[in-house]
Amino acid sequence: MSRHDPARLIAENYPHRMEVQTRFQDMDVMGHLNNVAYAALFEHARVLFNRSMRPWKERPEAERSVLGRVEIDYLAEGRYPHPVEVCTAIGRIGNSSYTIVQAMFQKGECIALSESVSVVRTHGEAKPLRAEVVAALNASLIKG
Amino acid sequence: MSRHDPARLIAENYPHRMEVQTRFQDMDVMGHLNNVAYAALFEHARVLFNRSMRPWKERPEAERSVLGRVEIDYLAEGRYPHPVEVCTAIGRIGNSSYTIVQAMFQKGECIALSESVSVVRTHGEAKPLRAEVVAALNASLIKG
Amino acid sequence: MSRHDPARLIAENYPHRMEVQTRFQDMDVMGHLNNVAYAALFEHARVLFNRSMRPWKERPEAERSVLGRVEIDYLAEGRYPHPVEVCTAIGRIGNSSYTIVQAMFQKGECIALSESVSVVRTHGEAKPLRAEVVAALNASLIKG
Amino acid sequence: MSRHDPARLIAENYPHRMEVQTRFQDMDVMGHLNNVAYAALFEHARVLFNRSMRPWKERPEAERSVLGRVEIDYLAEGRYPHPVEVCTAIGRIGNSSYTIVQAMFQKGECIALSESVSVVRTHGEAKPLRAEVVAALNASLIKG
Repeated sequence: MSRHDPARLIAENYPHRMEVQTRFQDMDVMGHLNNVAYAALFEHARVLFNRSMRPWKERPEAERSVLGRVEIDYLAEGRYPHPVEVCTAIGRIGNSSYTIVQAMFQKGECIALSESVSVVRTHGEAKPLRAEVVAALNASLIKG
Repeated sequence: MSRHDPARLIAENYPHRMEVQTRFQDMDVMGHLNNVAYAALFEHARVLFNRSMRPWKERPEAERSVLGRVEIDYLAEGRYPHPVEVCTAIGRIGNSSYTIVQAMFQKGECIALSESVSVVRTHGEAKPLRAEVVAALNASLIKG
Repeated sequence: MSRHDPARLIAENYPHRMEVQTRFQDMDVMGHLNNVAYAALFEHARVLFNRSMRPWKERPEAERSVLGRVEIDYLAEGRYPHPVEVCTAIGRIGNSSYTIVQAMFQKGECIALSESVSVVRTHGEAKPLRAEVVAALNASLIKG
Repeated sequence: MSRHDPARLIAENYPHRMEVQTRFQDMDVMGHLNNVAYAALFEHARVLFNRSMRPWKERPEAERSVLGRVEIDYLAEGRYPHPVEVCTAIGRIGNSSYTIVQAMFQKGECIALSESVSVVRTHGEAKPLRAEVVAALNASLIKG
């Protein structure tokens, strides 16, 4: 789903949603959440989302999920000390990789979108996703 | 109250207690919360504690509370992704400054203590604390 | 210039190059530079690049350059405590926005690419870039 | 040496001195270096200081140097984008622990002091410092 699709702006379309606290240190000199803080907030939710999907817990020892790419679109200024709601879903499932799509809300407004690409490797080489991984990813696809 | 006083290790002795999330980025190469992350977690609770005390909201425009000193004692290794409970109280009230004492708990264990000194200044000069500030600080003293 | 263009991987194609220190805190649990640290390292060089271009210093008071989007491609694992070389150039110049393209090198290897979109606004509204801004941006275009 | 000793304010009294870059992200909402950034800047120099002392490179596998306590005194406001000079030395040598004393300068002004306590442990237990460690620490004592 493209980042320009209006479905990306609706929290309920994401199966994994969590409140994430902002920190004093996240503020920039303008009093807004700084650009790097957005990356840390998205990462926090992405890691917990990955951990919540079962096949990763039982994965073969040499299998690694490696972040290949991250995109963030800044839509509005974030504020401190209000928490943000970070919503996370699977975007697309490839042969040896998949995308995670995320949206960040504050006081009901979508302030940022993110998309990241994870590549699954065994002993450093990209390998086709295992069937149970594909099933787990499919169960967390973005709706709409 | 000295940092060696056992009363410092009891969460209930601190009037302000809050859960603070840990972030993936807080982990060091050993898999523990890194030393600087403790400083950020304590700061987060300290700022919200200061904001919760009323006289700061109504303070004269030129009055500033400036951090003069921070101490952190590392008692045990912190873990991700578990949140921490940060407990905050006033330690001592001086003429133009006061101390904030804090304790950080994870799964019931005290993993760190902190003490910081704040100096109240007007136009850059230390000034005696206003009576309503002293009253507010007194209402938040550590117990025991 | 597409991020897949091999010219993006050559440091000398970027007019602005600087060494940036890595910090102990930048390391993740695997001992590599963490994903968010890359964002902070790129930001550091991007801000100094923006400051080095003269028209920003003389800009009208209400004019703001706002970050609209950031992309990072992770090509290889970064190491601590070695510094990185961050190379920065202008990618494309639009009507009211421009892109900054960056590459990060460590020990001669390109470990990450980044592209960001900056939108220039006056009183919150996108405005055509001033002629001297366009001239300054043109002077810093990526080569190749 | 007490933190109130004027010798602590003189860069030349510290055998290890290095320039550390500040980052855009280090700025707080007031435009100064934030309190947590000072902790990260001191940590950066402390880690490199520890690595520069030879016995740590050859240490027994089970031996660990663990940070037990950190103090920071904030003397003046730090500025971005100017780098800081962080000066590091050994303060005191105990039986199984030692202190590191540090001073941070910007444009020649001392803006912060720090003292930290490191405890050396083998299999988690404090053990007397090895003779070659004591010799190395002695060679890096603060002067004055």
